[in-house]
Amino acid sequence: MKPTDDPTVTDPDLYRVVFENDRVRVLEYFDEPGAQTHPHDHPDSVMITLSAFRRRVSLGGEQRDLELPAAQARWVGAQRHSGHNTGETPTHVFFVELKHSTQNPSGTTVLGPS
Amino acid sequence: MKPTDDPTVTDPDLYRVVFENDRVRVLEYFDEPGAQTHPHDHPDSVMITLSAFRRRVSLGGEQRDLELPAAQARWVGAQRHSGHNTGETPTHVFFVELKHSTQNPSGTTVLGPS
Repeated sequence: MKPTDDPTVTDPDLYRVVFENDRVRVLEYFDEPGAQTHPHDHPDSVMITLSAFRRRVSLGGEQRDLELPAAQARWVGAQRHSGHNTGETPTHVFFVELKHSTQNPSGTTVLGPS
Repeated sequence: MKPTDDPTVTDPDLYRVVFENDRVRVLEYFDEPGAQTHPHDHPDSVMITLSAFRRRVSLGGEQRDLELPAAQARWVGAQRHSGHNTGETPTHVFFVELKHSTQNPSGTTVLGPS
């Protein structure tokens, strides 16, 4: 298994761990317009939006544009991507990461929330 | 095992399911000052606060007063309680409920977030 790129390591100024136990790790993400993350991996997670935002998530040649309001919950299946704040407002979200993840066993590409 | 009181059944006007799959169920809770819930059960969950609030959670003779700001993540171990909005503002939170919960095997009383 290849090592995963933890977003708290690839982008420590944007991601921080706010809680962790044996079942979950909770990350808080906050950025300003124009910010971009390095490629990183997410396990199966629930994303809760605390702000509205517009972003582009991409991996290799694939990309997906997202626009979400505040106060939304979205499933983020295990995936690798980088993100770009393409809007005019900060992005503020929490990720509730599930441990013992299936790590996308189907092998299909998952990009962004469901 | 005794049946659990699902908060979406005991208080359907306050709790709603916003997402569910085989690993999690996500509930959104919104109330106004003075609102009270009936006794209900939570599995192991992560609570994300979208508003600041002041509440009293209680079970039988035990009670605990909570005051939390917005944009916080707290672990809520499996527990039974009822809640009372004792503040002057709405409570708006998400619960990310974990399936296959250990359901508090220690047998000790857990009341409110960690």
